[in-house]
Amino acid sequence: MAKEPKTLDDLFHDTLKDIYFAEKKILSALPKMIKAAQSSELKAAFEKHRGETEGQVERLEQVFGIIEKKPQGKTCAAIVGITEEGAEIMDEYKGSPALDAGLLAAAQAVEHYEISRYGTLRTWAGELGLDEAVALLNETLEEEKATDEALTQLAESVVNRKAEAA
Amino acid sequence: MAKEPKTLDDLFHDTLKDIYFAEKKILSALPKMIKAAQSSELKAAFEKHRGETEGQVERLEQVFGIIEKKPQGKTCAAIVGITEEGAEIMDEYKGSPALDAGLLAAAQAVEHYEISRYGTLRTWAGELGLDEAVALLNETLEEEKATDEALTQLAESVVNRKAEAA
Repeated sequence: MAKEPKTLDDLFHDTLKDIYFAEKKILSALPKMIKAAQSSELKAAFEKHRGETEGQVERLEQVFGIIEKKPQGKTCAAIVGITEEGAEIMDEYKGSPALDAGLLAAAQAVEHYEISRYGTLRTWAGELGLDEAVALLNETLEEEKATDEALTQLAESVVNRKAEAA
Repeated sequence: MAKEPKTLDDLFHDTLKDIYFAEKKILSALPKMIKAAQSSELKAAFEKHRGETEGQVERLEQVFGIIEKKPQGKTCAAIVGITEEGAEIMDEYKGSPALDAGLLAAAQAVEHYEISRYGTLRTWAGELGLDEAVALLNETLEEEKATDEALTQLAESVVNRKAEAA
């Protein structure tokens, strides 16, 4: 569609590649986070999110199909940085009672990155008249918001429990 | 306060250093974004946010004071990655009608990172009984949410305007 100068179609496609890379990166980080989590609730929450993430990757592949492009990732420096911070936490807080709180914070940073990207993509899809893509992106956006909400509740209970145990 | 193993106090202090670094990084990125923005509304929104960010840095310095630590940053890989993506957009979409949409997306990714960090810090401050810090962190959190909201509205109007002009 787009030639020079770059248009909103290009920006939509570039950002789709960015979040596609990010989702795959998250899929590869989650098993380590599941293993590291101390509480069974947090392990379960990460397990659930892994399943959801697989569905989100599939939805992105459908959106690539809608714009007639091959699903393809593009290195997303943001998610690389965010997951790097998560890995640091796992390393520095290993064996610490604060580990789960740190893992939760790392996961919420990831969720918020995704919320911003899916919100943006949904707005642009609407503008580009890609109604089917709007529906798919919205479904994932709502899922990410619900995950963030669940993690917030878990963060409050984890922190409280640790404080009582101390 | 903390010895081995690392505690929630350490995690709070570490994360405070992370967001302090991030806010300073944002302060140094904003002038470039203001310069790059095409529409006067977006320039004005970024200008306003620069002023707010200065206030947020001061609040963080007050929180460092509350826990009796010197204000100090610690490289935050996440914000480095997020701002790198913003710089890429400025480079790749220079002169493009989609530039402002891209700048808005970059700014919203920054906002969401901050929203996740301030939400986490507020929860931990509450748990640590740092009531004054809770109030300061909450004030910034509400400001960041309002900024994100304003950017969303701007994103919708910018995108619509460009589409009409096309």
